[in-house]
Amino acid sequence: MNKARNWAKAGSPIVLAENHGKRLVDQSYTNPLSGKDIIYTIFDASIISVIIFGLTTEEDVVAIKQFRPGAGEVIIELPGGNRNKNESLIEAARRELTEETGYTASEIIPMPNKLWIDPVACTPYIYSFLALGCHENVDPRHDENETIETLTIPLSYWMDMIYDGEISDMKTIAITLLATSRLSQRRR
Amino acid sequence: MNKARNWAKAGSPIVLAENHGKRLVDQSYTNPLSGKDIIYTIFDASIISVIIFGLTTEEDVVAIKQFRPGAGEVIIELPGGNRNKNESLIEAARRELTEETGYTASEIIPMPNKLWIDPVACTPYIYSFLALGCHENVDPRHDENETIETLTIPLSYWMDMIYDGEISDMKTIAITLLATSRLSQRRR
Repeated sequence: MNKARNWAKAGSPIVLAENHGKRLVDQSYTNPLSGKDIIYTIFDASIISVIIFGLTTEEDVVAIKQFRPGAGEVIIELPGGNRNKNESLIEAARRELTEETGYTASEIIPMPNKLWIDPVACTPYIYSFLALGCHENVDPRHDENETIETLTIPLSYWMDMIYDGEISDMKTIAITLLATSRLSQRRR
Repeated sequence: MNKARNWAKAGSPIVLAENHGKRLVDQSYTNPLSGKDIIYTIFDASIISVIIFGLTTEEDVVAIKQFRPGAGEVIIELPGGNRNKNESLIEAARRELTEETGYTASEIIPMPNKLWIDPVACTPYIYSFLALGCHENVDPRHDENETIETLTIPLSYWMDMIYDGEISDMKTIAITLLATSRLSQRRR
């Protein structure tokens, strides 16, 4: 079998529209089985994001709550954001955690997965970090359009919120699984 | 405090481009704290998807492997797809599982979370299902552009693939957490 092979790009992407660093593009790929070129419409953004699963010294999860325009509603999420130029992923994770929540970690551990938000139709992906020993030590730094609340939620209650459907952000749930497995490995 | 309130839409979305049911739009929202209107560029698609975490009678996870144009590489995922018109979510889950993998479930359980792929900049969301007693009984039905391999992977090995970073699809990891928690609830 081995049907699941990589496909080669057939030509450059055609930009249908572009705004705020986000593009809708048509990209052709050649199906290696049929030899035919197929056009896919893709949401493209040159963004690498970092998301942080932070635990306080009391084992509370450090989360944020804010209005999100894609969903059109208030969403509970793990903090994170885009990497700046000339910044390492781990530096971005430390900076975003503190800017968004006011919390600083005593230890930050990278997790192995490069996570696609939607490998079917979107190019952005994220990296995730486990942040331990988080403690509040500065005021969060939000820009004028951010209306973020910081929440600290006991880990067992956080898991119940996920199981009960109160958390609807996919990255937040995926990274919770990666982080809690990493935590239990450390404790063995 | 209560900073995290819903924002109201300020006018209709401006369509920057549209193709294959996918749109790049500018949508203005009014920040309730400042009263200012802010324009967000959003990837919009009127798609409701269902994703299925299927376990065989031998407790193998039923997964698929295929080239995905957003990621530009071969990705291991849980099976799923878009709901058709006039189809319930659970009907869509049954149909997609069988069409993509050739497996049929003896029981399908809806999970509570409505999952946003990216609440910041994307409108699509998915619903997930736990499918038990899956058994292979038909040939998968793929369209000519689909080059899908079906995989069955023992659950403990599947979890290791997630922890080791071999699974990079966010929905697959998030839904694995929801499904395994539901499984352990049933066994209590």
